[in-house]
Amino acid sequence: MPTKIRVTVWNEFYHEQHLDMVKEVYPEGIHRALANYLEKVEELEVSTATLYDPEHGLPDLVIEQTDVLIWWAHMKHEEVPDELTDKLYRRVIEGMGVIFLHSASGSKLFKRLMGTSGGGKWREAHERERLWVLKPGHPIVDGIGEYIELPNEEMYGDPSNIPEPDELIFMSWFEGGEVMRSGNVYTRGRGKIFYFRPGHEEYPTYYNKDVLKVIENAARWAAPSITPPTVTTGNVRSIEPIKGYIRDGMGNPIKQE
Amino acid sequence: MPTKIRVTVWNEFYHEQHLDMVKEVYPEGIHRALANYLEKVEELEVSTATLYDPEHGLPDLVIEQTDVLIWWAHMKHEEVPDELTDKLYRRVIEGMGVIFLHSASGSKLFKRLMGTSGGGKWREAHERERLWVLKPGHPIVDGIGEYIELPNEEMYGDPSNIPEPDELIFMSWFEGGEVMRSGNVYTRGRGKIFYFRPGHEEYPTYYNKDVLKVIENAARWAAPSITPPTVTTGNVRSIEPIKGYIRDGMGNPIKQE
Amino acid sequence: MPTKIRVTVWNEFYHEQHLDMVKEVYPEGIHRALANYLEKVEELEVSTATLYDPEHGLPDLVIEQTDVLIWWAHMKHEEVPDELTDKLYRRVIEGMGVIFLHSASGSKLFKRLMGTSGGGKWREAHERERLWVLKPGHPIVDGIGEYIELPNEEMYGDPSNIPEPDELIFMSWFEGGEVMRSGNVYTRGRGKIFYFRPGHEEYPTYYNKDVLKVIENAARWAAPSITPPTVTTGNVRSIEPIKGYIRDGMGNPIKQE
Amino acid sequence: MPTKIRVTVWNEFYHEQHLDMVKEVYPEGIHRALANYLEKVEELEVSTATLYDPEHGLPDLVIEQTDVLIWWAHMKHEEVPDELTDKLYRRVIEGMGVIFLHSASGSKLFKRLMGTSGGGKWREAHERERLWVLKPGHPIVDGIGEYIELPNEEMYGDPSNIPEPDELIFMSWFEGGEVMRSGNVYTRGRGKIFYFRPGHEEYPTYYNKDVLKVIENAARWAAPSITPPTVTTGNVRSIEPIKGYIRDGMGNPIKQE
Repeated sequence: MPTKIRVTVWNEFYHEQHLDMVKEVYPEGIHRALANYLEKVEELEVSTATLYDPEHGLPDLVIEQTDVLIWWAHMKHEEVPDELTDKLYRRVIEGMGVIFLHSASGSKLFKRLMGTSGGGKWREAHERERLWVLKPGHPIVDGIGEYIELPNEEMYGDPSNIPEPDELIFMSWFEGGEVMRSGNVYTRGRGKIFYFRPGHEEYPTYYNKDVLKVIENAARWAAPSITPPTVTTGNVRSIEPIKGYIRDGMGNPIKQE
Repeated sequence: MPTKIRVTVWNEFYHEQHLDMVKEVYPEGIHRALANYLEKVEELEVSTATLYDPEHGLPDLVIEQTDVLIWWAHMKHEEVPDELTDKLYRRVIEGMGVIFLHSASGSKLFKRLMGTSGGGKWREAHERERLWVLKPGHPIVDGIGEYIELPNEEMYGDPSNIPEPDELIFMSWFEGGEVMRSGNVYTRGRGKIFYFRPGHEEYPTYYNKDVLKVIENAARWAAPSITPPTVTTGNVRSIEPIKGYIRDGMGNPIKQE
Repeated sequence: MPTKIRVTVWNEFYHEQHLDMVKEVYPEGIHRALANYLEKVEELEVSTATLYDPEHGLPDLVIEQTDVLIWWAHMKHEEVPDELTDKLYRRVIEGMGVIFLHSASGSKLFKRLMGTSGGGKWREAHERERLWVLKPGHPIVDGIGEYIELPNEEMYGDPSNIPEPDELIFMSWFEGGEVMRSGNVYTRGRGKIFYFRPGHEEYPTYYNKDVLKVIENAARWAAPSITPPTVTTGNVRSIEPIKGYIRDGMGNPIKQE
Repeated sequence: MPTKIRVTVWNEFYHEQHLDMVKEVYPEGIHRALANYLEKVEELEVSTATLYDPEHGLPDLVIEQTDVLIWWAHMKHEEVPDELTDKLYRRVIEGMGVIFLHSASGSKLFKRLMGTSGGGKWREAHERERLWVLKPGHPIVDGIGEYIELPNEEMYGDPSNIPEPDELIFMSWFEGGEVMRSGNVYTRGRGKIFYFRPGHEEYPTYYNKDVLKVIENAARWAAPSITPPTVTTGNVRSIEPIKGYIRDGMGNPIKQE
């Protein structure tokens, strides 16, 4: 029997507690909206955590036992301690998958993994977003159509300061005239990373069945291998014999060792 | 008349002052070995800077007036102030090119740009390295042969914790049995980045005419565009008209705005 | 209950019938060596086909019912009819996965999918090949170590005339001094493609447990999605309203339509 | 004094001679509209050729003396002889750059180089196209803004059957609701390839100063290196000594050679 994929849905959980408009859409928080769906997926074992939980919901044991981390955040990136970011970063390098949602592109962990400074173009105008599939054979888009349509979303626009993805799965068309790379695959160390753009807190994006299906697919895709190759680091002995000799400043051999 | 490309060769300049073996190979420092060659290239205007210069050789005016930064460092990465790294980082995002040489893969700036933690496999065994060209049409390999052969080099081995390059120009074969991605192209914001692996301080690598030619080519390639597109950030107005309306928690329209 | 992945192992099956040295290594043919292993993998349903079977073992029904095609060929590429290549090509675009082994890089189907002319550097010198893992988190390398070592293989060397892979999984080190991109991932239409270099017919490469494990992993990875997005082609109506007007040769509007 | 880049602008030149609407926009043909602009660029030496010229304007000497080929075609792809396509293909592999414009994505040469079958989504509705820059530091977008806006264009829509580009420079937003990868960089052998989407024959797209600037930049970028690495093919001797021995079917050594 295959082991389940252990998913931890982490949410900043600030807006839902402080803004009526958001509370109305996500009364239990974005993390619960996501978990309610993901818990019904047989291969997944789902738990949730928020910024306001003890240890921000991510004590060492939880980090260790997470196969795929889902991250939503917007306003409180700076309240995530650097030490916690360090631990999460190391787990990604070792193989933990991460799905960054929407404004999580400004989180410490995303910026650390990507080498970006974040910051880009945005607009809140209740506009239409259409996410076109660019790689229709990719497991992340299994079960969805040629595009996902969201009647209201915040706009983020390219050119933006994110690195070239290893694979570009979705491209967004916005009613207001922009485009944005919206489903981006990256690898760091052994960790698989998926950035998925939509999800402004004022809209019911995380009840959209296509959006949920993509996150479900991405969780499965980002799960670490069962027995990944061990990666050796540090000073290593040679596998093949080496003749080894030193040359002088001009490249002339001076001794055999 | 085309403007010259302003190249700043930055060197840690520690080993050359403290280790006889290194001093013998690079009596004036690695930066001078590189500058002596690059100064003869007509399109380039070359200056040098080291960790031990005032403001580490990189006061604001120098940073501002550098088109391409070449970086060699090994032991003293931590002595580069975070504030300086921040400034350099921002200049890269805006368009300054960077060529990271050898152990500069452990520098703060490289790690910040790449999202890697550095650290990998290495060996100092005076072994042969052969850097094979993978993209023979790329401007970075103009004028060199199918491979560059170095009789003695330190080994770095893959799998290593660096992100997938946008373009992979060189792959190293090592006498001791390993391989390493050795000429790696990345883009961050508008900045073009080239990582070039060889250059252990004990060997005369930076007198090798092919190695120097690659660095020369890379300096030309990494130079910023003369009039690159301005990238807008922050809150922007729409280009196209937006119908804009809010929907309730279930996606039903509740008002027209 | 998940449907099994239907794998068809296609083999040229020429050398094994005409060269004693090869017959000794693969008495039943390379296809049977592969099938004997793959048949034991629970998720796979395996059949074989060869150039000398009626309709080359690939009548329309077999093509239609193949999820992943494995292709080994060397000397008789030209005996595969263009019409068959066309059919296979279209199936790949629609979603059939393909694993090309070794000299299958010279096959009509590979060249057609890649846009390469084939042809590269090679040597038969019974030399050691070491395939280093470059992406340790990728599902194709699940269960193997940091590298695969083959005591005797034919050499293929880069720079070679193959397109830049979407993902580079393995890089080969050869005893004779070359390197080669040896585990290459491509996408064409909805089809996932994996090129895996080793497998000269004179060596027992396809009994090596790591090589077999990689092929098993690749078969699972290359399987088409269960419900991939339908891709619309041809003349389509707009989703959004279009104001549409013609402008004259100088870009001035001349009428509203 | 640097040698000029020899650009050959090839045009099908059918519509301009048979359709009044097109003749009005490009009275001398699309090739002349492009050439009129490119001839003013100092580094370029420009000539033109069309399908209806003797030898289709591409006798061997012209092919040999072309550094960058620009290709526009739409209806008459099949009238380009296979033999000519073969010659052009080989020149690209050897290093000739190619810029494919608009419907040239259906040309024999493009399909051969890409491994695509062409065919995709399209619409002629005089709609607005906005090409957003995704890589603002790339030389191809030097001198243009954040986007190029074309008041009327034919739509092509993703997902389309083209391979993942090595670099994605432009993404198109269409008024009718679609997106399309519109400025795509590929490498085949030593040849640099740029696909640039806009240019329906009924619109004055090739008088747009941004479109022309991109084509000018691309011509400079696609020019072959002056002294590119020679690529060895065929049977080669080893660089390093090989111990070489044969193993039996089970991998046991049986003799030293």
